[in-house]
Amino acid sequence: MKLTILGCYSATPRTFTNPTSQVLDISNHLFLIDCAEGTQVELRRNKVRFSKIEHIFISHLHGDHYFGLIGLISTFRLLKRDKPLTIYGPKGIKEIITLQLKLSNSWTDYPLYFKELTSTESEVLFEDDKVVVSTIPLQHRIYCNGFLFREKLGERKLLINKVEEFKIDKAYYKSIKKGKDIKLDNGTIISNKLLTEDPSPPKSYAYCSDTRYDEEKINLIKGVTALYHESTFLESHKHLCHITGHSSAEEAALIAKKAEVGFLILGHYSTRYDNIEKFREEALKIFDRVGIADDGKFFEF
Amino acid sequence: MKLTILGCYSATPRTFTNPTSQVLDISNHLFLIDCAEGTQVELRRNKVRFSKIEHIFISHLHGDHYFGLIGLISTFRLLKRDKPLTIYGPKGIKEIITLQLKLSNSWTDYPLYFKELTSTESEVLFEDDKVVVSTIPLQHRIYCNGFLFREKLGERKLLINKVEEFKIDKAYYKSIKKGKDIKLDNGTIISNKLLTEDPSPPKSYAYCSDTRYDEEKINLIKGVTALYHESTFLESHKHLCHITGHSSAEEAALIAKKAEVGFLILGHYSTRYDNIEKFREEALKIFDRVGIADDGKFFEF
Repeated sequence: MKLTILGCYSATPRTFTNPTSQVLDISNHLFLIDCAEGTQVELRRNKVRFSKIEHIFISHLHGDHYFGLIGLISTFRLLKRDKPLTIYGPKGIKEIITLQLKLSNSWTDYPLYFKELTSTESEVLFEDDKVVVSTIPLQHRIYCNGFLFREKLGERKLLINKVEEFKIDKAYYKSIKKGKDIKLDNGTIISNKLLTEDPSPPKSYAYCSDTRYDEEKINLIKGVTALYHESTFLESHKHLCHITGHSSAEEAALIAKKAEVGFLILGHYSTRYDNIEKFREEALKIFDRVGIADDGKFFEF
Repeated sequence: MKLTILGCYSATPRTFTNPTSQVLDISNHLFLIDCAEGTQVELRRNKVRFSKIEHIFISHLHGDHYFGLIGLISTFRLLKRDKPLTIYGPKGIKEIITLQLKLSNSWTDYPLYFKELTSTESEVLFEDDKVVVSTIPLQHRIYCNGFLFREKLGERKLLINKVEEFKIDKAYYKSIKKGKDIKLDNGTIISNKLLTEDPSPPKSYAYCSDTRYDEEKINLIKGVTALYHESTFLESHKHLCHITGHSSAEEAALIAKKAEVGFLILGHYSTRYDNIEKFREEALKIFDRVGIADDGKFFEF
């Protein structure tokens, strides 16, 4: 998995910082998560092959998480896209986009699908043989979801020296990787355990922005490889968290600790702060595996 | 008048070029003309005091002319604006903006007014004692207006040495500047002509983007100080002009020549071209006072 941060500040775009968007490269998918104003330029700047994006997940309808969506959809049209694109986001997103396409008389030439969300329970949005994406209901000022990306357990790994030793025909490799035993021409049965080893443990990524401190989501994100959790405020402004529906760095770390995640990534910083390193310092008091997001930075896990 | 080009390319934002937006500083107003994605960042980058903007003119509802509007409106709210803001643009612009404000539950705290346009005749949009702004109906693929900004004739200029010579009380200066004669205490009448000189001739700026070649607008823009006229294509792609509703550099120059304008500014270049200097070269074959817009460039006239 490779997570590229296109923008990780709250509120407004500024000359050198962008509001929220990130792209997750996982199991041959490029998933775009949130799409603030400027996202398409950041995709170019970070040399992401953004025509490959087929699924866009919008957490909520505050502008710092989706104002770049209509522009990206339009740019795909101008770039002569033909692949389908699916938008997952709160009810209303379809009306916002289609109203603008209608008024500009610029319908897309490619199939554009919407899956509008209303549930306050976690639900599966996308699934194929490699990955499953589901919602993480979040507590914010308006209806909001995080997103959980889970790799599925892969095929067993073939031990090449072993299959060659038993002179097994390559035609059987596919079924061996699926865990099947093999019967040789002489009738001997070779146990799959002799021919393969366990697949890599599947990885997972949880995106939680925007949200106030809320332990209800802990079960959903328990043990994920990496958790992005918003930390809009430092301790000095902790009193603003509840009313604005945001979290402090310490609160994010507390969720990470209770959910026993592998690694915590902080972001969605209030633009009032100059030094984002302080977010890590405050989180480290609670949890010891903390990274700080910054525009253009990427995380591999 | 000072015209700052925030973006002057067509179609999509790219890493180093922006779609259309410009800001006109005239008679103590900052008028924003079109507002593509990224405009608020370009306002910051160009150090425009954008809280001073009270009027935004949107030519048409293609995204490269207005996708940054909702973001700017939202940023004004976050910056605690209290001054009114008026948006002038095609019918539908109000629904686009208010739908998004409603769904984000983020109504502005400042008064936000819309004047929606439907007329295909020129109409006055704004007027005060210094300036009048009216539409220039344009021929594009969808309903589109250019905008004409005309300074009004200013007050007569006081000849300080003369009014002092006649020992005229300062209380009369205001009426002298308005053109009144003065009666001295001894009964002598001093003609205004002795005390003042003509005001500077009023300046004017016409913004014409997007439009195909169309001579109907020439009467409206006759003799303006500066004309911004779109030139999406070079001669090599002239065959695309009519069907896309755009103009070539030569066509823009021909309009400038027939309208006898003071100065032509070219812009709205197709992103297929690397060297925008060629637009000037082609226009210079027809008209000899040609400037080329570029992002971050400004023109004073």
